This record gives sequence, structure tokens and C-alpha cells, in this order.
Amino acid sequence: MPNSAILLIHCPDRKGIVAGVSGFLHRNGANILHADQHQDTDLSLFFMRVEWDLTDFALDDAAFRAEFAPLAESFEMQWQLAYSAARTRVAIFVSQQQHCLVDLLFRHRIGELRCEIPLIVSNHEAARDLATFYGIPFHYTPVGADKADAEKIQLEMLDRHNVDLIVLARYMQILSPDFVASHPGRIINVHHSFLPAFSGARPYHAAYHRGVKLIGATSHYVTAVLDDGPIIEQNVTRVSHRDQLEDLIQKGRDLERVVLSTAVRWHLDHRILQFSGKTVVFD
Amino acid sequence: MPNSAILLIHCPDRKGIVAGVSGFLHRNGANILHADQHQDTDLSLFFMRVEWDLTDFALDDAAFRAEFAPLAESFEMQWQLAYSAARTRVAIFVSQQQHCLVDLLFRHRIGELRCEIPLIVSNHEAARDLATFYGIPFHYTPVGADKADAEKIQLEMLDRHNVDLIVLARYMQILSPDFVASHPGRIINVHHSFLPAFSGARPYHAAYHRGVKLIGATSHYVTAVLDDGPIIEQNVTRVSHRDQLEDLIQKGRDLERVVLSTAVRWHLDHRILQFSGKTVVFD
Amino acid sequence: MPNSAILLIHCPDRKGIVAGVSGFLHRNGANILHADQHQDTDLSLFFMRVEWDLTDFALDDAAFRAEFAPLAESFEMQWQLAYSAARTRVAIFVSQQQHCLVDLLFRHRIGELRCEIPLIVSNHEAARDLATFYGIPFHYTPVGADKADAEKIQLEMLDRHNVDLIVLARYMQILSPDFVASHPGRIINVHHSFLPAFSGARPYHAAYHRGVKLIGATSHYVTAVLDDGPIIEQNVTRVSHRDQLEDLIQKGRDLERVVLSTAVRWHLDHRILQFSGKTVVFD
Amino acid sequence: MPNSAILLIHCPDRKGIVAGVSGFLHRNGANILHADQHQDTDLSLFFMRVEWDLTDFALDDAAFRAEFAPLAESFEMQWQLAYSAARTRVAIFVSQQQHCLVDLLFRHRIGELRCEIPLIVSNHEAARDLATFYGIPFHYTPVGADKADAEKIQLEMLDRHNVDLIVLARYMQILSPDFVASHPGRIINVHHSFLPAFSGARPYHAAYHRGVKLIGATSHYVTAVLDDGPIIEQNVTRVSHRDQLEDLIQKGRDLERVVLSTAVRWHLDHRILQFSGKTVVFD
Repeated sequence: MPNSAILLIHCPDRKGIVAGVSGFLHRNGANILHADQHQDTDLSLFFMRVEWDLTDFALDDAAFRAEFAPLAESFEMQWQLAYSAARTRVAIFVSQQQHCLVDLLFRHRIGELRCEIPLIVSNHEAARDLATFYGIPFHYTPVGADKADAEKIQLEMLDRHNVDLIVLARYMQILSPDFVASHPGRIINVHHSFLPAFSGARPYHAAYHRGVKLIGATSHYVTAVLDDGPIIEQNVTRVSHRDQLEDLIQKGRDLERVVLSTAVRWHLDHRILQFSGKTVVFD
Repeated sequence: MPNSAILLIHCPDRKGIVAGVSGFLHRNGANILHADQHQDTDLSLFFMRVEWDLTDFALDDAAFRAEFAPLAESFEMQWQLAYSAARTRVAIFVSQQQHCLVDLLFRHRIGELRCEIPLIVSNHEAARDLATFYGIPFHYTPVGADKADAEKIQLEMLDRHNVDLIVLARYMQILSPDFVASHPGRIINVHHSFLPAFSGARPYHAAYHRGVKLIGATSHYVTAVLDDGPIIEQNVTRVSHRDQLEDLIQKGRDLERVVLSTAVRWHLDHRILQFSGKTVVFD
Repeated sequence: MPNSAILLIHCPDRKGIVAGVSGFLHRNGANILHADQHQDTDLSLFFMRVEWDLTDFALDDAAFRAEFAPLAESFEMQWQLAYSAARTRVAIFVSQQQHCLVDLLFRHRIGELRCEIPLIVSNHEAARDLATFYGIPFHYTPVGADKADAEKIQLEMLDRHNVDLIVLARYMQILSPDFVASHPGRIINVHHSFLPAFSGARPYHAAYHRGVKLIGATSHYVTAVLDDGPIIEQNVTRVSHRDQLEDLIQKGRDLERVVLSTAVRWHLDHRILQFSGKTVVFD
Repeated sequence: MPNSAILLIHCPDRKGIVAGVSGFLHRNGANILHADQHQDTDLSLFFMRVEWDLTDFALDDAAFRAEFAPLAESFEMQWQLAYSAARTRVAIFVSQQQHCLVDLLFRHRIGELRCEIPLIVSNHEAARDLATFYGIPFHYTPVGADKADAEKIQLEMLDRHNVDLIVLARYMQILSPDFVASHPGRIINVHHSFLPAFSGARPYHAAYHRGVKLIGATSHYVTAVLDDGPIIEQNVTRVSHRDQLEDLIQKGRDLERVVLSTAVRWHLDHRILQFSGKTVVFD
């Protein structure tokens, strides 16, 4: 795993962007490991992800920011710079069902997810043992009559632990608009349907009653509108009349954990750009 | 391909149905080729498809109907009997896009679809050459200001040709409730989305703007409510931000023709039971 | 979950089998929950799985065996009778990689796998903590110069714990023919390729070097010939030139755990018949 | 569809390639439409595909070749330049089964495959009508005792028609090494299995007898070793014990036509680089 920097760019499409960025990096000694770009022709937007080895690179973070700024301004770029050495700090929220949590924690342990997980938050006690097994502090924040109380406590914990990303691993509470606004574009949820089909509550029940032949799961960024945020990943599996509701739920669990962990990994690896209610994923 | 009979049964679930039916067939010399049954535990319904070789079978059609009736009544069965030798008569409706039509006609020619196709109906002239190449009469029925005029002509043709099944192979007209009611449960449509997502017009546009990561297609029986009939088959394919709208449309064509021809084949082989807005497919 | 019996039958195909079996069950008060049959026309073989509720059933195990025997003999049936209440006893063998083990143990905990797991066996210490977390005795049996020594110890343990099924959850030792012969048709392995492609060692390396566009995993019963036993389940996932060897290994882990746990679940639910080097899976 | 140029590059990986190429294009007024690059870290190779709009581009073909040469030499590039306006000339070879041919010709008609098809070659007369329907000259070249005679005639035809690419659309003759050598890296075949499993004759029979749970199809470039050339695309579909051999063949046809037409489209759009027995596909 090299010590690398990742630059994500998003700007109006125009001639010379690739030449400008790659020339800048080359002049400063970057050894490019991966580069990917995309043009949205409808919206005339340009997107780029470039990752380079820092070994021979001439600029430290401050110098990069100073020297890259004029180029970025000339192309009206929105850009983010990240370093592979700086681990994202992730809080996982979970309710009673633990299949996604089990999956995320094991992937974290074996190195698939390069992040810190300073805390697990739950409105139930069910996951405490598992958190303890993996050595991660577990915080029980019951959600009572006034959801705002729990959210206030949660926000303080997130703040105290410098959390960058919130992962809702089957957390069965709807977050308030204020909570969502506190971490814009940095909350990932898994919804147990193929969105936009069956948004809202009890999607497997709805799928069962509609008689669909495939069920799905969707990971997405959370926005103020329920189940409406930018979709990161989706997958489906085949069902038939032989599958009862419980079979749909069981098959769905396998989808949910894969689409959620994939989304988290892409986010951690700085592969996702959000724009116009959609995502560009440089996988 | 044996000379066989196919019995489709649908009744309240109760003890002794399989014993009753299989005993009846056995006493009359049936050599069972396939048998499949299903219980819907929610609705306490029983479904069965059984196919047997007619070679040593003791009963002709009239005798079967007479002798099976008491058993059927005792279990309150709804049942249909079909013979592999009796080809279903199919009318294909098409508009300008021919990818589904090309597919159906070639499959018919090589024997994948065991049916007669006495006519192709279209509100455009575009498919006439193709119909002629495959030796199938082509009827141009333009849809003008009053759709009822065209439907009247179409219904007369369907009647004259003893059509059993209507296949809408990307026919871009919405059928009137009266037209649908004339062939209940015997009109198959392909919709170019993963229903219930993106029902109605321009589903690829809607999918593109929502930013989904999979697109789908759905074949279903037509009912009076648009895109709401029992789903027969669905499939999806992966898309990414690299896919523009035209790429979705192109990828979708491959889905549409497979889900439509699969549905038609299952219908022709008497594998589908419709109930409660859903299908049981004994594939 | 009803208290049910499951009968698996395998015999030469002949008229009257379904009538015979369903008549027998009906006369004895069985309420059939599921029934499925299959004819292999090439080999003229008949296969059947039937499951019924024991609530009103007239026969206990001994009576069933006595009264069913004449019918079974008349059709030359090979048959097995199992009860949902009798939990299969499973030993899991694992080496250093734990992704399949983690998956099996979690599925067991939440009730997807209806079995007892009296022991986990490993040639490494790596999985001890996990076994302890799930409360399952862990036995470290290092494999030294003479593999026979380890196998002797393992066989004694399997015997002592009345193990019915051995699951090789990425156990990286080749079992001796004698070991395999001790549990014929009752050892399930997962191989990390789409068999028969890339049998033997290091399949992901081989797949990477061949430049395939899909990688796979296969669960199968173990026979004396390596990677040649009856296939139970397979799945694949897409790879591209962007995927390095480590990416193949990572993507493959997700396939392995699903194809292995699916195979184990089908075995535990008595859905699999083995014949002629293949499987019939009544899923 | 813009009037564009496509540059494919392949060279040892080194710093500054992207900067060099994008700088060169930018200085000459190129408006880049798509750019994609890839590093093979094992082999230290760099691959790039870049496509730009020719509207404001300063260099004609001769000037490009002259001015790009020094840059290409300094990086030891192997490169090809193609123009979207220059249609590749394709010969389709077919035997008796026409499902792939039907598919290719329809896709060509509706603009999915941007090429000229000056001839169809067959060792049977079966496809003549279809070729005539689509207005493409059909050449019957029976393969007798001495295959070399037929190949001699075929090579003359290919030469006379300036054929760039040969597509074997279920052409059931093995080409001689000399024939293959005449169009190196420019013959695309579809094999009806998931290679490397079931290479050689009758792969569906082999798959059926092995009892696999998925069947596949593979499109690849033809080399002197049978079924061993660089794989372009693969796909699979699920089968079960219910599928007899004919079902495998039927399901396989749907795979074959999609993997073949996809490969042809990628080749025509200059998206494929061949190296070291594998492909990079910039899709």
C-alpha cells in the first residue's frame, strides 16, 4: 500500500483541464498511480480523480494548496485533497439487526476498510457484545419520546470523536433534517430495496405483495428527503413464488451487507463525487 | 417433443390434493413428465402444474373433462387443460422499434416459441419488411385522433384470426380498458424499467436522472391499470456514470427482448398461473 | 417453523411413483408442506423431495419405516427420512482465513442454519477467539510432517461428537482418501474458482494470468479426486483489467462465503440429492 | 456522434506520460471527449485511450504522425490512431446456426455497430436468405476434404474486400494457423463456454455432464492455440438440474450473442488493447 495523495476535482468542462492537472503534477515529481476522468455531456461538467505516490513528490500539503490554487481557480474547480495515510474516522449506527455491522467489523479487521472506527452507536443493547469483541467502544443511546434528545447526545459524541463519516448499518431511526445537515454528504445508509422502488417502511413486504421477480438493496448518501439521496451502489437477487416473505428478508441481508460495505469502501478510498443528486464512482 | 397434456390447478390448500390428482392420472395410464406444486401459506392457496405423455393415456379431452370434474369440484379447483399439440395463436403488436419483434420472430423460426403467429399489427409501417421476410401477414392500423377506431379494427382482426395471446413488443400505445378486458390475462407487455420503479413514460430518462446503478426491464400481463399487472419476469444490468442516456437505452434493449421472449415462452408452455395480482411461474 | 418430516427419494423412473407416495402419505394423515420431483430423462431416474407437517401424521419413525418399505421396494427406491426437529451435527474446519467461518457462525446465531456446531477444528490458532466469542469449542490440530497423525485425532473427535457433516470453510489441507471415505457425501468444501476452471492450487492467480472477465466460487461435496465432487452451488462476479490480484481475492471472498453457506443450508434442510457425480437441489 | 480521433497507447510505465500526451493534444487544440488510462503494476506497463473532437484540432493525419513521433519514441510507445469517420470493414463467418448473425445484422442496421459489412462467408447455404434480407453479399465456401482450398478462396475474398476484422459468429470450422496469422489480433470468436472451462468441442455437453450450476460464453481474439486467445468478454447464466442439455443450448444462445456483439462493438470503437495474452477494455 503506497503512501499516496488523492485529488478529486469537479468543474465546468473545458479544454485543457487534464493537460493542466497532469502537467502540474508532473512538474512537481508525482508518480501517478491511477487517474480517471469523466465528462457529463448533459451538464457540461468535468470530474477527475487522480492518485499519486508521494515518494518523490515535491510539495507538502500547504505548498500544494498554495501552488495548485491558481490552476484550480482558472478552471473554477471544486476540489478535495486526501492522503492515504490519514484514516477517515467512522461512526457506525446500528439497531437490532447486526448482519451489516458484523460484515463491516470483519472487513475492517482484515484491512478491506481503511479507516478508524472510534465508536458504535445504537438505540438497542443487542450489538454491545459484538462491539466489545472487536474492541470498539459501544454507546447505547435509546431513542425515546423526543428523538431530539438522543440526537443531541449523538452529535456531541460525533463531535468529541472527530467523526468524518457516519454509516447507518440498518439503523432503524429516521434522522432529523438538522442531524443530516450536520454531516452533509457524509452519512451513508443502506435501504433494503432497489430504489426508487419501495422507498419508505417495510420494503420487503411491499416487494412480496407486488410479486417482483428480483429484490434489491441500495446504499446511498442521506439527504433531508427520505431514501432520496445520491445512490452509491445497488444490487439485486432473484426470487420466485417459492420465496415467502422470510426468504426475501434472508436473501436481502446478503445484498444489504455487500452494497453497504462497498459504498463505505469507495467513500474511504475517495472514489465518490456527489453532484446533482447523483454520484460518480471512480471504481 | 412428446405429445403431452398439461393441467394447471389453483384451489384452496387442503390435504389430499396431490394424492387425488396423481391417483386420478395414474389410474388412467398417465406417464407423468413433470409435476410441480406450490403452496402460498399466506393465502392458503394450492397451485399445481402437471404434464403427462398422452401415449398410453386412457381419456380423450371430453372424457377427461367429464371424469375429472367431480374431483375438481370436491377441491373447489379452478383448472385449465392444454395440449402440447394445440398451438397457441399469437398476435404481435409493435411500433417503430423492432428489437423485440426481431427477437421473437427468430426464436419462433428456430422452434423456441411453439405457437402460430397469424398476424403482426403495427401503428407504423416500419416493421413490414421484417414481417414479410418471416412470411407473416402485416397489418398497418394507424392510431389517429380517435384511438377507438384503430382498436375496433384490431379487435375484429384478432377475432377473425382466433388469437389467443397478444404480445406487445414495444407497442407504444396505451390500450383502452375495453380492449384489455377483451383478452383478460392474455396480453403480455414489456416495460423498459424494473417495475414498480419508473412506471409510465420515458423510464430510461427517469432512471438516468435518478442516477440508479442498475437498469431493468419487466414483462407482465396487462391489466386496466398502467404497468400494474402481474409481473412475469424481470432482469437488470449494471450501468455507471459513464453511461449516457443512449447507453441506457442500448443496454435496455438487450434486457427487454430477453424478458419479453421468456415471458411469452412460459405462457406458451402453460407454465404461468395468475392470482391476486401476481404470478406463479413453474419454470 | 413446523415440526415436519422430509423424505428424499431416488429410483428408476416409472409410472405411479407420485401417486404411490402421495397416496401413502395422505392415507396416514400427512399435511404436505412442500413437494418437488424431478425426472432425469437421460438416465431414466426419478427424484423426489416431500415435506409434511407431523401434527396429524399417524406414523412414528419405526412405523413409517415398516409400512413404507414395501412401496419403496416395489419401486426400487433409495430413500432417506429426516425430521426438522433433529438437528444435524456439524464440524467446521478452517485454516487462517476466517471470512467463511465468520459468515457461518453469524448465520447460525440468527437461525439461518438449523444445526448444532459442537466443534471447530483448525490447523492454526487464528480462529480461536472467534470460536470462543460464539461459544463453540475450538480444537487446534496442527498438521505436521505426517498428515495422518492430525487426521487420526480429527476422526476421533468427529466420532466422539457424533458429527454428521463436515464443512471445510477455507481449510487449506487436502484430505486423505481414507478421511474422505469416512464421511462419504457428507463433506462440503468451497473452492475459490468457477469449477472446473482453475481447479487445484492458487486459482485466483491462475484466473488473473488468464485474463478472465468473471471470477467464481464453487461449493461441492468432497470426493477422493480433488475439486471433482458433485457441485452444489456456484456464483461469479465481474472483474476487469483494473482489478489486480488482491482485488480478485477480495471480490472472491464475498462469493466464497455465499456459495458455501448456501450449500450448507441446503444440506441441512435436506434439499440435496447426489447422483452420478452431480446434485439435484430442490431449492 | 462527433467526428473524433482515438489514440491507443501501450508502453512501459514511467512518469510524465499523461502530462506529455495531454499537453501535446491541448497545444494542438484538441477537445478531449474521453480519456482513460491503466497501469499494470505487475508488468510495469502503461495503457491509455484518449478520444478527442476533431473540430478545432490543428493536425491532419500526416501532421499528427510526424509531430507525435518524437513523444512516442521518447516513451517507447506502441500506438494506433483511428478516426470515428473511418468505418472498419468486417467479414462475418457463420455456419448453420444463425442466432449470432441475426443479432449482429440487426444491431448493425440500427446503428449499434459502426462498421461496413461487405460480406458474409459460410460453409453452408443456410444463412443466404438472411444475408439477402439485409442486403449483404453472401459467399458460400464449402469446406471439403482439404480445408486449405476453402481458406485460400476466403483469404482472397477478404483481401479483395479490404477486410479489417473477421467475426466468427458460430463458424464451426477450426482455422489453420496460417489463416489466423493472416489477420493477427483481428479475428473475434465466440466460444460457448466460460473459458478456460470446457474448451474444445461440445462444451454444453461437457457442462451438462459435469453438473455445473452456471453456464457461460466467451468472446476472444483467435490465436494459433484453440480457445486460448485473449478474452474480451464473458457472461454466465444460472442452470439447475431441471435444465436438460437442450435447455443449456437454448440459454447459451442468449449469452453467445451478447458476448459476441459486445466484443465486436468494443473492437469497432477502438476500446481494446491486447497484451500478454489478455485484454484491456476501456469501456
